[in-house]
Amino acid sequence: MAIKITGTGSITPSQTFSNTSFLQHDFFDANGESIPDENKNVIEKFQAITGIEQRKYAEKGQLCSDIASVAATKAIEVAKIDPETLDYIIVAHNVGDIIQGTHQIDNIPSVASKVKANLGIKAPSCVAYDILFGCPGWVEGVIQAKAFIKAKMAKKCLVIGTDTLSRVLDDKDRDSMIFADGAGATVIEEKEASGGILSHKTMTFTAEGEADYIFYGPSNDLHEDRHTRYIKMQGRKVYEFALLNVPKALKSCLDEADVPIENLKKVSIHQANQKMDEAIVSRFYRLYKQKMPEDVLPMNIQHFGNSSVATVPTLFDLVLQSNYGGHSLKEGDVIIFASVGAGMNINAIVYQM
Amino acid sequence: MAIKITGTGSITPSQTFSNTSFLQHDFFDANGESIPDENKNVIEKFQAITGIEQRKYAEKGQLCSDIASVAATKAIEVAKIDPETLDYIIVAHNVGDIIQGTHQIDNIPSVASKVKANLGIKAPSCVAYDILFGCPGWVEGVIQAKAFIKAKMAKKCLVIGTDTLSRVLDDKDRDSMIFADGAGATVIEEKEASGGILSHKTMTFTAEGEADYIFYGPSNDLHEDRHTRYIKMQGRKVYEFALLNVPKALKSCLDEADVPIENLKKVSIHQANQKMDEAIVSRFYRLYKQKMPEDVLPMNIQHFGNSSVATVPTLFDLVLQSNYGGHSLKEGDVIIFASVGAGMNINAIVYQM
Repeated sequence: MAIKITGTGSITPSQTFSNTSFLQHDFFDANGESIPDENKNVIEKFQAITGIEQRKYAEKGQLCSDIASVAATKAIEVAKIDPETLDYIIVAHNVGDIIQGTHQIDNIPSVASKVKANLGIKAPSCVAYDILFGCPGWVEGVIQAKAFIKAKMAKKCLVIGTDTLSRVLDDKDRDSMIFADGAGATVIEEKEASGGILSHKTMTFTAEGEADYIFYGPSNDLHEDRHTRYIKMQGRKVYEFALLNVPKALKSCLDEADVPIENLKKVSIHQANQKMDEAIVSRFYRLYKQKMPEDVLPMNIQHFGNSSVATVPTLFDLVLQSNYGGHSLKEGDVIIFASVGAGMNINAIVYQM
Repeated sequence: MAIKITGTGSITPSQTFSNTSFLQHDFFDANGESIPDENKNVIEKFQAITGIEQRKYAEKGQLCSDIASVAATKAIEVAKIDPETLDYIIVAHNVGDIIQGTHQIDNIPSVASKVKANLGIKAPSCVAYDILFGCPGWVEGVIQAKAFIKAKMAKKCLVIGTDTLSRVLDDKDRDSMIFADGAGATVIEEKEASGGILSHKTMTFTAEGEADYIFYGPSNDLHEDRHTRYIKMQGRKVYEFALLNVPKALKSCLDEADVPIENLKKVSIHQANQKMDEAIVSRFYRLYKQKMPEDVLPMNIQHFGNSSVATVPTLFDLVLQSNYGGHSLKEGDVIIFASVGAGMNINAIVYQM
């Protein structure tokens, strides 16, 4: 018995914002001091580090649950399943549904319930719930689907990562250039087959103040209402944390799967920041005294930005559907899904196609 | 091997608001029409239906994650476990952390991460995440703990239900009198023992517009900002839905556990509304052509209000710790945990002490 991903789907949000769209912003640092550099230089430096040239935002009227439903519909089509046979709809997000121009997250009912309603699934036995696990939420949702299948509590699960972070951005903060909107969906099934999920690893770090590395906080512009809060990062701390801990987590997961590093075809890592992702995967290979192969790391952050929970399933879908960036996967290939984000949480799955 | 609840803890929030504290409110209906009845009559009618005499609110400075941490500390003490050995912290809520006087839900990081930080748990292997499943969230968290234990992915889980609904109340809406704050926690462990979780049932209904029965919406006072949203219900629809579906779910769960109805000692049901809860359990017994026994239904809604995800673990803790309302449980006794709420979701667990 194997636990396989039998369908993937994603959405490419229709609004494209290039880096130049930030040229007229007034940027402040976390202490409220105006950034002395010219915006042109700020943006160039930003692009050199993150790799981001443009990012995608959902349309004004689209909610996180709407783009999730589009991605889910595609994944169900590819999997060729009857959606009424789904045992679970697991939706990971950070901020869920927020009406454009407002600041309130709407958790009631769950995004998963709204997706189920949008998909028109009738069977009450299809249980719909949301998880909050920071950006690693989609990977964690797949790990939870694995648990349900192994426990004989499910055979088919729909796992979605979806977010509209464009609605919680402080446009006075340079970090607002990183984030984007997106949704990626996958159907996970128990199959008489080989491969599938070979191992997983998941961790939550809070002992050294990590819960405050990515957080909700007021604008960098001290003149703005201190009660209105936005997504915020301590960028340097996130970077150092990720570089220290993610490579070890990947190694532990790959070793548990008993897969030699030479057999690893791709690392589908959370699109957080290009330089950081490259450094993480490079260090991971160094733990095996190897150099990172050139074709192991598909990246779409250049054109999509960091769409949090949506990046990993979206990237995987793009590779499967269109050999994105020249990357391809065939039956038997081994891939790692990996993520790091608010919590701070880290997780990974070794998966054989 | 059994999956047992080895520790429980809860908090009784310190602020008490009696029904008379609503005497000066201006109540409007969902169409913005002023309620013609005198408030005295409105409140009397409310008390007659819901059973609520007073409700508990957290202190101004306390967040949902703070009260969760108090309940969790107690549950860990009772279970006599080393918190570093916990494999999961699963936190269910509806609105999570909201600073008093503001309207923004703070999902970043998860409440579970904040609880883990508050408890000072260091082990990264203790995975902390939140679920959104409406009021049935705590019961669902226990079902997820069951999945992890059955799948050999965990041995010890901390499952918490916590909410501060007092922060999302529209004081122009009579339904605001129902809701309250609270937190209840439980330690779930794999044990060499008999009994424990015998069966579970969980369902999500969205095909007939149920996703809109409990929702986030603007104030009943049409003069208030239409973008500021509060917890809202279509009370009559919730009532009819619950009466139609919950008794059948309870029966299906009890039958799966193969427990004769005569052996059922208590029904620990979500404290939503006294008359509704009594009607549900009464109908459940009627499905077995029996009359509801007088001592089967512990209720604390009179003094606590409806604290959403917190009601079931809080009530169970009160019965175990202090024989609340004269109710007691001893080893071998069978109890049903049951809930219904936003989603719309229904779930139940048959549990043997």
